[in-house]
Amino acid sequence: MTRFFVQPEDLQQDFLVLTGENAQHAKVLRLKNGEEVLVCDGQGKECLCTVSDVSAGQISLVVKHTQTSQTEAAVRVSVYMAFAKGEKLEHVIQKATELGAWEIIAFPSGRCVSRPDEKSLKKKLERWQKIAASAAEQSGRGVIPQVLTVPSYKAALERAAQADVKLFFYENERATTLRMALEKGSYQTVSLMTGPEGGFEPAEVDLASEAGLQVCTLGKRILRCETAPLCALSAVMYDSGEF
Amino acid sequence: MTRFFVQPEDLQQDFLVLTGENAQHAKVLRLKNGEEVLVCDGQGKECLCTVSDVSAGQISLVVKHTQTSQTEAAVRVSVYMAFAKGEKLEHVIQKATELGAWEIIAFPSGRCVSRPDEKSLKKKLERWQKIAASAAEQSGRGVIPQVLTVPSYKAALERAAQADVKLFFYENERATTLRMALEKGSYQTVSLMTGPEGGFEPAEVDLASEAGLQVCTLGKRILRCETAPLCALSAVMYDSGEF
Repeated sequence: MTRFFVQPEDLQQDFLVLTGENAQHAKVLRLKNGEEVLVCDGQGKECLCTVSDVSAGQISLVVKHTQTSQTEAAVRVSVYMAFAKGEKLEHVIQKATELGAWEIIAFPSGRCVSRPDEKSLKKKLERWQKIAASAAEQSGRGVIPQVLTVPSYKAALERAAQADVKLFFYENERATTLRMALEKGSYQTVSLMTGPEGGFEPAEVDLASEAGLQVCTLGKRILRCETAPLCALSAVMYDSGEF
Repeated sequence: MTRFFVQPEDLQQDFLVLTGENAQHAKVLRLKNGEEVLVCDGQGKECLCTVSDVSAGQISLVVKHTQTSQTEAAVRVSVYMAFAKGEKLEHVIQKATELGAWEIIAFPSGRCVSRPDEKSLKKKLERWQKIAASAAEQSGRGVIPQVLTVPSYKAALERAAQADVKLFFYENERATTLRMALEKGSYQTVSLMTGPEGGFEPAEVDLASEAGLQVCTLGKRILRCETAPLCALSAVMYDSGEF
């Protein structure tokens, strides 16, 4: 079923009007009176609606039923990815959204070769949020993951450490596997932290450990910085019973 | 450690000479006498070597030790991906290699919008094999996955059906999860089959089932055709104890 995202305040009615980009999209899809669509607030609430009128730039809908999204993961996974070259970060935002991530946080670390300055960051965040919204729509999600940045490596660690399970992936770790880290008990929230193109510095690994993160491995092969978070996210979704 | 791939017949000596692209690569890396490198046959055998001489276009090595690759997955996973637009297939070849796939097989299906003709296929296969070789080198693998194609959907099913666990991912499947399919017993070989941009046709799902493949789901969200095989591969690697 076609899915439109609107602002949360626009969902609190018995009927809805799609305008702007949503109306344009509806036009491309040639929506007709009587067809059913889903309108989501991007925060997990959605309305099953019937098209009642199609005009230029405006689609009117009657709300049939309001529900909590049925396609969200039971576990909230936060993907912490060190700043990487633009297309890699964008790739991870798109794919992590499809795979069900709750939020995506970009953070600076010592070996980041690419790090947007204050000026370009606002524009980039807007662009990244659009990528997440588009991927959420295509994959049928009810929540658009928030894409955000934190100003320092330390801030990233402190934020990540608040989850039930907080994992830090390091290519030189051999002893602790992801499975060992997940077997310690049940979990509702997970932080996954991965490094930039050049990997983490040894001192950063120590800091992560001190902050309470579990340093662990994703196996014997070296994964690229855009592959590691998606591999870890897929495995956590599998482990938590999503598929 | 730097890793070079040579032809299998070139590994059967007490000393080795790197030429051509390998020698060029060694020059870029500024390899010096006494440094250690790994030379692999791309089929799981590798030699730990010491550089003994660096000349223009030729690097001489002394073999210290020959071993079986330490970085290969215990389970052999064959990734069957329906022909998709070029960059998507190439993306999956690169990422599946990093994630440890044994081989990658492209196959035709009803809704494939992109399917190379006989003439361009040979060139494409060469290109795809190069992508796999490059990803194997970067990720530290001892095996370069074979990239191949099969001429028909039926041939793909017959080939895939020979694995211990043969899985067919379909977005409309609700009952059987990947976990259920993997819990049926131990496995050494796995086939993972995923569709093109437009998904599988219902009749193709029936054929897969008749051929002995287990139809299963990757969860409630719709994954793109390039995301599904990598998600499934990550989960199988996790399930089989790789990380």
